[in-house]
Amino acid sequence: MSFSPLISELIAAFRCLPGVGPKSAQRMALHLLERDRHGALQLSYSLQQAANQVGNCQQCRTLCETTLCPICSSSRRQRETICVVETPADVLAIEQAGGFSGLYFVLMGHLSPLEGIGPEQLGLDQLIQRVKQDQVEELILATNPTVEGETTAHYIADQLQGLPVSISRIAHGIPLGGELEYVDGGTLAHALAGRKPWLVND
Amino acid sequence: MSFSPLISELIAAFRCLPGVGPKSAQRMALHLLERDRHGALQLSYSLQQAANQVGNCQQCRTLCETTLCPICSSSRRQRETICVVETPADVLAIEQAGGFSGLYFVLMGHLSPLEGIGPEQLGLDQLIQRVKQDQVEELILATNPTVEGETTAHYIADQLQGLPVSISRIAHGIPLGGELEYVDGGTLAHALAGRKPWLVND
Repeated sequence: MSFSPLISELIAAFRCLPGVGPKSAQRMALHLLERDRHGALQLSYSLQQAANQVGNCQQCRTLCETTLCPICSSSRRQRETICVVETPADVLAIEQAGGFSGLYFVLMGHLSPLEGIGPEQLGLDQLIQRVKQDQVEELILATNPTVEGETTAHYIADQLQGLPVSISRIAHGIPLGGELEYVDGGTLAHALAGRKPWLVND
Repeated sequence: MSFSPLISELIAAFRCLPGVGPKSAQRMALHLLERDRHGALQLSYSLQQAANQVGNCQQCRTLCETTLCPICSSSRRQRETICVVETPADVLAIEQAGGFSGLYFVLMGHLSPLEGIGPEQLGLDQLIQRVKQDQVEELILATNPTVEGETTAHYIADQLQGLPVSISRIAHGIPLGGELEYVDGGTLAHALAGRKPWLVND
């Protein structure tokens, strides 16, 4: 004997969310039904709207429901610098950090032959076209410092060889506020190899 | 600069779920939009169906979309014993533990004057009516061992005084597999006070 069909189905449906196991799914379903029907209907509506209407920006491929995303259609952004990231969440992280005023290109993933994700799935033709046509001066490769992210960055840099665009990779090293003692060996090696001359203030 | 409106609204809508903060909400929204549109639409549909159709069982008040819940309408349950619990999740917990074959009464909360939850909100009139009419022999008070749960149990027991029904409270003590050393003082005191004679096997 368990819950009635509609409740059981709702609990099962919550399992599609990342990090939600059977207990959390049950808690979410019962919370909404016992205490927040309005929130449940609002979430239902938002899910339907977003799932049906959100597509990809024609220029940078990030998730948005318009032809061009707010960043690509902004007149305040510098069009000669493009930052290449893996996901829309990475765009938000960089925007929230502040300090970058160029445009983005969102791969929506990384090269992963095992999962069948090749250059076409990442829209690399489109990126190369854009670099050629839009007089891009600098391309910043900001894929994750994972095996797949590094491979993807290398592949993109290879494809752009010979074009008049400078290619850079975001710096890897000790995070601000981090302690050397607790940083992993790979990061520490990167930080040492990427050391910069100390600037003496006048 | 953040996400486009529909995505921002979806992230905000996820905040109605218990235990979901801004980061989790963003991760859920992006996961569904990037990788699982089908799951998003399924969840949207389930939410709408459940929020609109799930009501309360006419007899035991648990959440269900039919007039009587599966337990109340089952012919296999013993109708002379009623177990009073606070929430539908408690019903499931007892059902999964097995061993109880009576019926339930779900308060859908506990007495809480501060939140405006009195005897009417908990359907206590209905419970007392049921005890009188259905020849209930035993009422098991299985509200939580919290201040509110205890108060609610005391109140119900008081209201039923004089009626030909035996009232019991679920036992509180050391959980199975628990270690005395790590059990809190209140539980330990309960366990000592509630000790039972050791039965010598013949």
